[in-house]
Amino acid sequence: MIDFGLLPDGGVRWLDASGPESHLVLSTRIRLARNISGRRFAGRMDPAEYEELVKEVETAARQTSSLGQAVELRIDGLSQLDRRVLLERHLISRELAGLGGLGAAGRARALLLQDRLAVMVNEEDHLRLQAMASGADFGPAWEAVAAADAELGQRLAFAFHPQFGYLTSCPTNVGTGLRASVLIHLPGLVLTKEISKTLHGLSALGLTYRGLYGEGSEVVGNFFQLSNQTTLGRSEGDLIDRLRNTVRRIVEVEQEARQVLLRDAPAILEDKCWRAFGLLRYARSLSFEETMNLLSGVRLGVSLGLITSVSLYALNRLLVFTQPAHLQAAAGGDVSDQELALRRAELVRRVLETEVRRTE
Amino acid sequence: MIDFGLLPDGGVRWLDASGPESHLVLSTRIRLARNISGRRFAGRMDPAEYEELVKEVETAARQTSSLGQAVELRIDGLSQLDRRVLLERHLISRELAGLGGLGAAGRARALLLQDRLAVMVNEEDHLRLQAMASGADFGPAWEAVAAADAELGQRLAFAFHPQFGYLTSCPTNVGTGLRASVLIHLPGLVLTKEISKTLHGLSALGLTYRGLYGEGSEVVGNFFQLSNQTTLGRSEGDLIDRLRNTVRRIVEVEQEARQVLLRDAPAILEDKCWRAFGLLRYARSLSFEETMNLLSGVRLGVSLGLITSVSLYALNRLLVFTQPAHLQAAAGGDVSDQELALRRAELVRRVLETEVRRTE
Repeated sequence: MIDFGLLPDGGVRWLDASGPESHLVLSTRIRLARNISGRRFAGRMDPAEYEELVKEVETAARQTSSLGQAVELRIDGLSQLDRRVLLERHLISRELAGLGGLGAAGRARALLLQDRLAVMVNEEDHLRLQAMASGADFGPAWEAVAAADAELGQRLAFAFHPQFGYLTSCPTNVGTGLRASVLIHLPGLVLTKEISKTLHGLSALGLTYRGLYGEGSEVVGNFFQLSNQTTLGRSEGDLIDRLRNTVRRIVEVEQEARQVLLRDAPAILEDKCWRAFGLLRYARSLSFEETMNLLSGVRLGVSLGLITSVSLYALNRLLVFTQPAHLQAAAGGDVSDQELALRRAELVRRVLETEVRRTE
Repeated sequence: MIDFGLLPDGGVRWLDASGPESHLVLSTRIRLARNISGRRFAGRMDPAEYEELVKEVETAARQTSSLGQAVELRIDGLSQLDRRVLLERHLISRELAGLGGLGAAGRARALLLQDRLAVMVNEEDHLRLQAMASGADFGPAWEAVAAADAELGQRLAFAFHPQFGYLTSCPTNVGTGLRASVLIHLPGLVLTKEISKTLHGLSALGLTYRGLYGEGSEVVGNFFQLSNQTTLGRSEGDLIDRLRNTVRRIVEVEQEARQVLLRDAPAILEDKCWRAFGLLRYARSLSFEETMNLLSGVRLGVSLGLITSVSLYALNRLLVFTQPAHLQAAAGGDVSDQELALRRAELVRRVLETEVRRTE
């Protein structure tokens, strides 16, 4: 099992609900795709080359202030359960976990973790640098990832083309290699049925949306990942600003939708939030999907000030720790889905009980 | 509005969960139908005769120890809301309330109430004497109603035929004029789908079942009224014994069904009970039907010892006070169904909050 005790706040500080708009925006992530000049792309290397690359990146990282103290995890040496835990924390991608499309078997893969930074080695690209921040906090996330990029760039020859920009394994990432994304909670737009219009408008702005677990994952609990679609033809600052402005606008329309609901159907809204709370507080068996939906209801109640006995931080932590692999890991692995549902309900009850006692 | 403060424990002492089998059986009622010899049946009297009869019964009752201190309510002088409240308390019938089949307009009707006794005057029969008890407590209910019957019989000439017994307006009541019934909670038999078999067996024993509100009412919340079908050809003691024995047997099969559920699906059962509790404790809007179903779930949890923070008495009281007319009366009348649902949820929350604090 991975010892998350090595990481600040068990590796979930980015969910501490401290950043701007954190009642709606859970987290911001900025990722840069980088490849080493003169090496074949990650999909085409042989085992020895993968191993070499991990060493090369590690050596370079150790010489930087951004990643000098990084915890290093060899992903290919971890159990499937540990890899799923890292995936559930959004610390690694489905690909790096070896659960996605590309054949990861026998491929040396590593994750470097320091503070809000994570660097994946031998994912789809040689390096994927990622920084996370709580709330809609683009500045610190960008500064962290840009600093790491600059420091590593002095030690590693990143593949860069004067016309196209950074070269990447998949052409859609060529250019800045940047993907900025936020995890945002939009129950108001879902309840007022304004959500499809809002999401539809994203593509005209070069943006796109996904579910909680990235590409191809379903939207559950009204949690959406919004990110830029294009990486080419604009500067990093422009791409981030565009997402930042769009998020600001979506936060506004979400707030408006909530005001409409509070005005037109206050009782229904309040009832919905409190029923979710009642079920989470007392249910003895909870599926992951139901939990997400109920957490969504409670979160709405908390951010509207209807429910004051729970903190957003507690809800954010539950979003992470009620996930299947997290519960499996806590149980020591090899637990049936049915048993997992009991343990999930038990965890939720314990956390909510503590919250209620704390605020009473 | 009726002042229930005149009655012991607001008129709901019969729901205090003190009697035998009170975890399953809410209450026992025994009713006797009586008519005065030489008078036309209640359906055929003129207004003056109705008035006369009320006076005659009242005068006789005042001379008895059973009813000497009775509170008297002139039903025909009450608002529809007050009559609905009495109906919801099972103190009067749909007929006496003027909400049932027979044309009650202009018909003098009265209710005499003392302790566990209630006497309806000018219902389908001239007199309907009824005694209620908490739990499956046939003895005290029978003793109370029989004593009142004997005392009144010394002062009023009850129509009695040596071959047929007591004569009644409807032939199905001729003979003893007795109907004994229990209100019983059978969620185990419903969940194990054994209920139809159980209910089907009743008719062979001369018994029948109904919903919470008597003839023609739907079964909600797994609450059933079981009663004797026939009144002729057997003694009062035989009729009561037969119901008593059948109830005892049904209590056994219900307990067996619960043991099967606890053995085969403990998590599902526990989850069901606690979810009901969570919803009742926090919902902001509750329909009557949903409330009955959730109270059924919590009651099951309490009687299985899974939920210890609520008393059966509190649940019984909620069964009464969350009914539409009771909530209307508490609100001063003229409240919409939507508003009633909010007030219902508020009352339920307040009662459960008190219970939880009391037992903490």
